[in-house]
Amino acid sequence: MTARCPHPDGFGFQLLLTDTASRARLGRLTTRRGVIDTPAFMPVGTRAAVKGLLPSQVRATGAQIILANTFHLLLRPGPDLVRQMGGVSRWMNWNGPLLTDSGGYQVFSLGNPRAGSTEPSAPLRRIDDDGVTFRSPVDGASIRMTPQSAVDVQVALGADIIMAFDECPPHPCPSDDLRRAVDRTLDWAARCAGHLSQICSPAGPALFGITQGGLDRELRRRCAQELQRLDFPGYAIGGLSVGEPHEEMVELLQDAVRDLPADRPRYLMGVGMPADIVEAVRHGVDMFDCVLPTRNGRNAFAFTRTGGIRLRNGRYRDDEGPLDERCACEACRGFSRSYLRHLFMTDEMSGPILVSLHNLTYYQDLMRGLREALAAGRFEEAAAAVLAVWKNESNRA
Amino acid sequence: MTARCPHPDGFGFQLLLTDTASRARLGRLTTRRGVIDTPAFMPVGTRAAVKGLLPSQVRATGAQIILANTFHLLLRPGPDLVRQMGGVSRWMNWNGPLLTDSGGYQVFSLGNPRAGSTEPSAPLRRIDDDGVTFRSPVDGASIRMTPQSAVDVQVALGADIIMAFDECPPHPCPSDDLRRAVDRTLDWAARCAGHLSQICSPAGPALFGITQGGLDRELRRRCAQELQRLDFPGYAIGGLSVGEPHEEMVELLQDAVRDLPADRPRYLMGVGMPADIVEAVRHGVDMFDCVLPTRNGRNAFAFTRTGGIRLRNGRYRDDEGPLDERCACEACRGFSRSYLRHLFMTDEMSGPILVSLHNLTYYQDLMRGLREALAAGRFEEAAAAVLAVWKNESNRA
Repeated sequence: MTARCPHPDGFGFQLLLTDTASRARLGRLTTRRGVIDTPAFMPVGTRAAVKGLLPSQVRATGAQIILANTFHLLLRPGPDLVRQMGGVSRWMNWNGPLLTDSGGYQVFSLGNPRAGSTEPSAPLRRIDDDGVTFRSPVDGASIRMTPQSAVDVQVALGADIIMAFDECPPHPCPSDDLRRAVDRTLDWAARCAGHLSQICSPAGPALFGITQGGLDRELRRRCAQELQRLDFPGYAIGGLSVGEPHEEMVELLQDAVRDLPADRPRYLMGVGMPADIVEAVRHGVDMFDCVLPTRNGRNAFAFTRTGGIRLRNGRYRDDEGPLDERCACEACRGFSRSYLRHLFMTDEMSGPILVSLHNLTYYQDLMRGLREALAAGRFEEAAAAVLAVWKNESNRA
Repeated sequence: MTARCPHPDGFGFQLLLTDTASRARLGRLTTRRGVIDTPAFMPVGTRAAVKGLLPSQVRATGAQIILANTFHLLLRPGPDLVRQMGGVSRWMNWNGPLLTDSGGYQVFSLGNPRAGSTEPSAPLRRIDDDGVTFRSPVDGASIRMTPQSAVDVQVALGADIIMAFDECPPHPCPSDDLRRAVDRTLDWAARCAGHLSQICSPAGPALFGITQGGLDRELRRRCAQELQRLDFPGYAIGGLSVGEPHEEMVELLQDAVRDLPADRPRYLMGVGMPADIVEAVRHGVDMFDCVLPTRNGRNAFAFTRTGGIRLRNGRYRDDEGPLDERCACEACRGFSRSYLRHLFMTDEMSGPILVSLHNLTYYQDLMRGLREALAAGRFEEAAAAVLAVWKNESNRA
């Protein structure tokens, strides 16, 4: 592993402040398309659309960057069309910073059909040292993904930040398999960095490395250390929040963050509930993405400053109050819990739309609150207030 | 029939202009909650929600009044809750003029299961001279609707304009049945007017009478004449556009409108395609409602100044143009046909949302164009331009 990852023009991370009482950091990420204040939450726009919301509404929540999923866009409509249309960000009229994942997580999830799934048990994917071959869930076509092609697709999608192609082992995972997954992840990270530097340095996107290693501290440490020899402009922590208890995740995260360089942004992938995010920020994570605000929003669950609200509950039938008294989003300014409940009870699209809008606003307000608390030197106090609400098991989604 | 319909405070219709070349009229309808320029198109908010759109978006299309369906709101959540929440308009944060239908159309549609329906053939409703008893499609409960209760429910819903409870015969319909339906419609209209004047004149809503009579000219004339003895503040034409050819509808409409008083607003219920609307305006209709812009929007069909666009068609895959070059809606300002097609191909909610938004904008632009043409004395020219596009069979939805 000798190739170093290119550090593209226009990309940078400025560490503004590290909390004295915790390891939380205030920072600013700069990309070609705009600035992102960290700690930051990235709404998920899987198929070049944040489910239920227009880009103007996503922006109104305070979001400064969104995520799109390479796997889904590779299947439909394919990277060539997206490139022809000017890239995801322009095509979907977001026109702001965009991060794409590598597709690894989704490809490796294909092999783990959920309990009760009616899918055939025939293997949906074959992994080898050079990549993965899998059948398209859309049309059954055989698709080959390699570290190089994952970079090619993400470059075609026009992201500002792209992710290395990693092997995401299931949880739990036998230690031999876990070690092999980490070795592959490291090898593939080097191939991604080398390929990117060949095809578009220094004008291309910033490539982040991903640490794997399941719940094995030593393996994660080795992965983090070896990745750093490639000098990525940012690092992600993958393979957490995959079913392990919250406390175990938080404990492991402490060490996982400590093994990463202080001057690079740290991204905890796919996390999570408000309590997970606050704990991760406290331990030094800068970036997050998660489908929970929109998925829960579609499912009638609202995040509020006083906990979760399950709108289908009959207690809200004649509740004239807003979802959250202190929220300024369009849902809270204009609509009562009573009306929102009615929308869900009658399957009106406006229910998922409004609660998704509110939930994303809640997440952005949460992040802004943490940033303001960091700047004011009262982070632990702010964190404790959020945790007091969300550590309560009955408030979890 | 001696009771006269109350003319509530704050309601009025001002006839500003009648076209010299056609029978088209420019007018202004005033309600307690605001003014509506006519000819007007009313978006349908069946269950106190225009499907897929927030009230702020509906307002941005130019709509000045919306319609809600009494039948659906009677079933869920019921009129008592809506009244407690301040009425439909406030509850859904529309806060503008609202018209409710009487529920008659839906109740009488219950007896006509569509071809291929798996519903049991047992009678879903029983009609008698005092009203209708039917089973709730939501929970099977037996529900009784009478002219009086239809008024009560609409008053509870808080509409500015309410409709008399009418019997809507199927099409085609034996002449005896048709005559009986008209007799009942007249009797029920008198009961509605009498009941409304007892419970809330002059502070209540304006009640419109509805003419029925299928495709029978003489019957429709008698219905219109007898209704006028009740002196309604507005008149609707019901039972058209129920499957008869466009030309037949337009021909019948001419007579049906002629039988109505010139100084009262005329409302053609449930119509229609752009060509239907233009023809009806030409013959003197002032108000319209229809689910087509939103239903077709959810189904990937866009109305444009050059005709219909079926977005699932592969020809739009890489079409970088907007739905309609001359449209200023958010969908046309921000998104290409290519992207909109992608949203439908991947079942993203934003597809139905954006095309519904566009279609409602198209309908409002259509009505504004007709009003401006009327004011400028070039109505026939404007009407011909729209008809040239939409009389082309391939452009019909």
